[in-house]
Amino acid sequence: MTAPNPATLWGRVLVEELVAGGLEAVCIAPGSRSTPLTVAFAQHPDVTVYSHLDERSASFFALGRARRTGEPTALVCTSGTAAANFHPAVIEADRARVPLLVLTADRPHELRDSGANQTVDQVKLYGDAVRWYAELPDPEADERKVRSLRTTAARALANTGGVDPGPVHLNCPFRKPLEPIEVPDAVPDEFGESLAGQGRDGPFVETAGGSTTLADGQIETLADALEAADRPLIVAGPADPAALQALSCEDVVTVADRVGAPILADPLSALRFGDHVGTESIADSRSGGLIFGGYDGYIDELPAPDVVVRFGASPTSKRLRHTLGDADCEQYLLDPAGDWREATFTATNLLETSPAAAFDAVREILSERSESTTDATPDAPARDASDDWMTHVTDAERRHWAIRDAATDASEFEPNPFEGAILGAVFEHAPDPSTVFVSNSMPIRDADRFARPRAADVTVLSNRGASGIDGITSTALGAGSTAAEPLVLVTGDLAFYHDSNGLLAIERCGVDATIVVLDNDGGGIFHKLPIEGFDPPFTDQFKTPHGLEFDGLADTYGLELESVDPVEFVDAYRRSLAADGTQVLVLEFDSAASHRRREALDRQVREDVRADTP
Amino acid sequence: MTAPNPATLWGRVLVEELVAGGLEAVCIAPGSRSTPLTVAFAQHPDVTVYSHLDERSASFFALGRARRTGEPTALVCTSGTAAANFHPAVIEADRARVPLLVLTADRPHELRDSGANQTVDQVKLYGDAVRWYAELPDPEADERKVRSLRTTAARALANTGGVDPGPVHLNCPFRKPLEPIEVPDAVPDEFGESLAGQGRDGPFVETAGGSTTLADGQIETLADALEAADRPLIVAGPADPAALQALSCEDVVTVADRVGAPILADPLSALRFGDHVGTESIADSRSGGLIFGGYDGYIDELPAPDVVVRFGASPTSKRLRHTLGDADCEQYLLDPAGDWREATFTATNLLETSPAAAFDAVREILSERSESTTDATPDAPARDASDDWMTHVTDAERRHWAIRDAATDASEFEPNPFEGAILGAVFEHAPDPSTVFVSNSMPIRDADRFARPRAADVTVLSNRGASGIDGITSTALGAGSTAAEPLVLVTGDLAFYHDSNGLLAIERCGVDATIVVLDNDGGGIFHKLPIEGFDPPFTDQFKTPHGLEFDGLADTYGLELESVDPVEFVDAYRRSLAADGTQVLVLEFDSAASHRRREALDRQVREDVRADTP
Repeated sequence: MTAPNPATLWGRVLVEELVAGGLEAVCIAPGSRSTPLTVAFAQHPDVTVYSHLDERSASFFALGRARRTGEPTALVCTSGTAAANFHPAVIEADRARVPLLVLTADRPHELRDSGANQTVDQVKLYGDAVRWYAELPDPEADERKVRSLRTTAARALANTGGVDPGPVHLNCPFRKPLEPIEVPDAVPDEFGESLAGQGRDGPFVETAGGSTTLADGQIETLADALEAADRPLIVAGPADPAALQALSCEDVVTVADRVGAPILADPLSALRFGDHVGTESIADSRSGGLIFGGYDGYIDELPAPDVVVRFGASPTSKRLRHTLGDADCEQYLLDPAGDWREATFTATNLLETSPAAAFDAVREILSERSESTTDATPDAPARDASDDWMTHVTDAERRHWAIRDAATDASEFEPNPFEGAILGAVFEHAPDPSTVFVSNSMPIRDADRFARPRAADVTVLSNRGASGIDGITSTALGAGSTAAEPLVLVTGDLAFYHDSNGLLAIERCGVDATIVVLDNDGGGIFHKLPIEGFDPPFTDQFKTPHGLEFDGLADTYGLELESVDPVEFVDAYRRSLAADGTQVLVLEFDSAASHRRREALDRQVREDVRADTP
Repeated sequence: MTAPNPATLWGRVLVEELVAGGLEAVCIAPGSRSTPLTVAFAQHPDVTVYSHLDERSASFFALGRARRTGEPTALVCTSGTAAANFHPAVIEADRARVPLLVLTADRPHELRDSGANQTVDQVKLYGDAVRWYAELPDPEADERKVRSLRTTAARALANTGGVDPGPVHLNCPFRKPLEPIEVPDAVPDEFGESLAGQGRDGPFVETAGGSTTLADGQIETLADALEAADRPLIVAGPADPAALQALSCEDVVTVADRVGAPILADPLSALRFGDHVGTESIADSRSGGLIFGGYDGYIDELPAPDVVVRFGASPTSKRLRHTLGDADCEQYLLDPAGDWREATFTATNLLETSPAAAFDAVREILSERSESTTDATPDAPARDASDDWMTHVTDAERRHWAIRDAATDASEFEPNPFEGAILGAVFEHAPDPSTVFVSNSMPIRDADRFARPRAADVTVLSNRGASGIDGITSTALGAGSTAAEPLVLVTGDLAFYHDSNGLLAIERCGVDATIVVLDNDGGGIFHKLPIEGFDPPFTDQFKTPHGLEFDGLADTYGLELESVDPVEFVDAYRRSLAADGTQVLVLEFDSAASHRRREALDRQVREDVRADTP
């Protein structure tokens, strides 16, 4: 590796090492100070470059790609406020454990705080939201410096992953010339032949990530607790990308089956959709056996669990969170980084382990025990209490879906259209395989309640790390950029407006999608909150109706837009899924009416479940 | 003051104090956690509430209002990534000394880092970019706590101003209920009668901001240096809002006239436009006497100055910055905060003083000396060297505008349209009074070169603190929200796209504008840089043509859009200025051709000036 000048050398070496270390894609926003990075990425044959014009959208796009693949995705911007536009996505990546590598160009050190143009304080710009912050040294063809650069690239990539994946920030000062212009003697020929100059075949440093596992005794304790429980419960919260890749759903299902534990599967966990659904021993449930999805409707009407094992982030269902908060029993939190991820503070045990490793180990223990039990006492009685428990939950789940089915039947739906039914239909008819990205704040809640578990390879994603409505479209498109499978985005009118700039990526980055906009002209979620009773300021400051029609945005970004009657949604949805290009399906709803309908269905489920409960 | 619960009490007391302390406007983005603040602002009769749906646009709108008025403007958002969307505007406010008060709602302390929804680390979210960070205590009807809250409001407002104005961040944790719902005994009746509960007539704490002035001896030294100089130069850089309000242009002009110093007036200084232009003793110059605006074309062709007095931020003109960097002479930097604001590091004296105070004092000294000189030696010879110097600069300035006039004449312009001519016309025909907001990165550079000084009350604004192209439309609309005078925004296609969401404020916030979009389909500035010679990646990664047509955006936001032939710009511009509502005038340019034209004109001016220079 040689280069016409130090800045170009820096860009080339850094990009060479990142790509050798496995980086496959980068999102770049145009700028001058970042020229050495941009040129090096653009000229590297083995990395995909996505060019974006709004840094905020760029960063969410990168987030989406990293979220879908679990692979680190890089971001490049110039100096100044550009870097601050990445901040929301960096925070989401932090909270949601998404591997993001942020490369911000900066002015040379001596220009900081001197009134130089486009120069701001970028040192630790994202505070504690990054796993690692490093500032590159001033570019120079110095062997030790360049070895440090190669090593820094390996460390940066490694720090986006591991047991606690997340964003890493490298601040990269460059001085002119920034372009590949020859500066005589700046990079001597002999430098190219040094170890620093040549690098190594493959990455300069190979990094191997470890994983956290527990001692055998701890796993035994967990297995014991599950086996001894009368009403064990497994709660799968939203998965981070690494967990989504690593977890064996079969292991979880096998353990659950063995101990008689229902699995409450958040739509964002790996468990609500997949081949493991409906293939278990309890086959008669409409919900698919051990995987439960309707619990938000009834969980607090059931007897309290007596042992809980939970993993992933805090569940989307507020009712589930509160039920767990009220459950004064052994509650095991499994987390690979040993983080505390439940805000009711009633969990009793924090186990620093990857859920994948823990379930694999528990499954093995239970299987060994089962074999020895079968040998010793072939006629051991079934665990009656546990069977009752499972029956209970299964009945409640069945109630939930029966009522939902009725509500979405044409005869009931036509006079009472509501947003939840659309979420149900989106998932019921989602292609197998597909990626479905669901916006905050109401759509993901409706997905939680109305997306029935299904034996199909549907990857459900959302920005639930910080639960913002910013960057939704871009995150979805980033997720869709990487997979050959269809991409569906379900979003609201506020989120669709908020990231309207993200629509530019559809053409520029070549992503096709079906975009379902649930347009209730403002913030539907506020109808759920007591502020609804105080108007003013409810309408003007909370609900904030804007009256926007989205045809103009569709025109601007060359998209087909169709206003769809909610009653005809499934047909329009199927047509879009079968078509090329991106279609925007806009469905208008009255958010207050939708909310009343949700409440009515909820009451109905609860009454039915209550009537069933002895 | 009493309240149904502690959160509501907190919101009411804080807002009461802020408004009593002089806060007149707030930009609010909808959210739940911020309910106590939003409700209190919405219910206060004496504060203007602007409701925005995208926090990034909200923050730039607030920035624009504060930038135009010099008055602190508040921002409110909910917890989570919403707050990070303010970060770019906070950085701009920091660098540009704009008083911004950021109120971010947060979850209660115990929910942080626990996986609670929409909970991120907001502590010192903006790092060192704020003048003051404080976290409010947990709301409670405790007398000392509430007195601290009232005091904090006064301190926060005061810290947005003073000698170094800028952003202040109050992080505001709230616990439920967030709405004005009665919680028995939470705020006892007797609390309302305490000092804490009642507050005082007017603000709880009156704050008085000081200003920095120099000792008499220091001012004498400055006056001596100016008087003794053969080629004195006054450089007025971009002004911060406080300076824009406080500076007496007449003082500067009087001093300049007395010592024979040309005033190089950045378009963003207070000096390029105003009644002081063209009213001085050197009346024959086309540029209006002592105020020079064309210096970017010729300054390095003239003899070097031998004393420089500069104030404000670093000038827009790169050639001027480099010329000052090469001028090995006494260079006085005047700055109220004693900041170092020139990145060539050749200035010799840093004077911690407000420019207003310094020029007032120097004027007085010179005036006293003049009187005594006149008394003693009535026939004192004129300062010949200084006269030559002024003639020199005046001749060069005249050359500049003569060539510009020729270039914009129909006969020359029709075959060679270029963006700079539009900037010239925008300012030549800007109403008196008016506010003209100019985007980064090419429009402000063209304004610098092509906006001729004029005896009209034209307030020129730009985001030159960090020189981003983000938030431009919103900043302009925020600036326009406060003044009765017409608002003009000159922006580029990338900046117009970047903040397309900001257009929503036109209707929601009731701002009318004339928006001139110089559409050269990508980043015109990159033609100025050496990267132009490397294609690829020049076109795809730097110039980044996007092909966007803006009709759809205009439709979305209910604006009139007109595609205007550059040759017919002045007519369309005048029509728009005379019309109600907001018009978007889109002018298409070939950025490469524009750049070549700028270069040719520049060469022409330099050759002429060089021919004149002895």
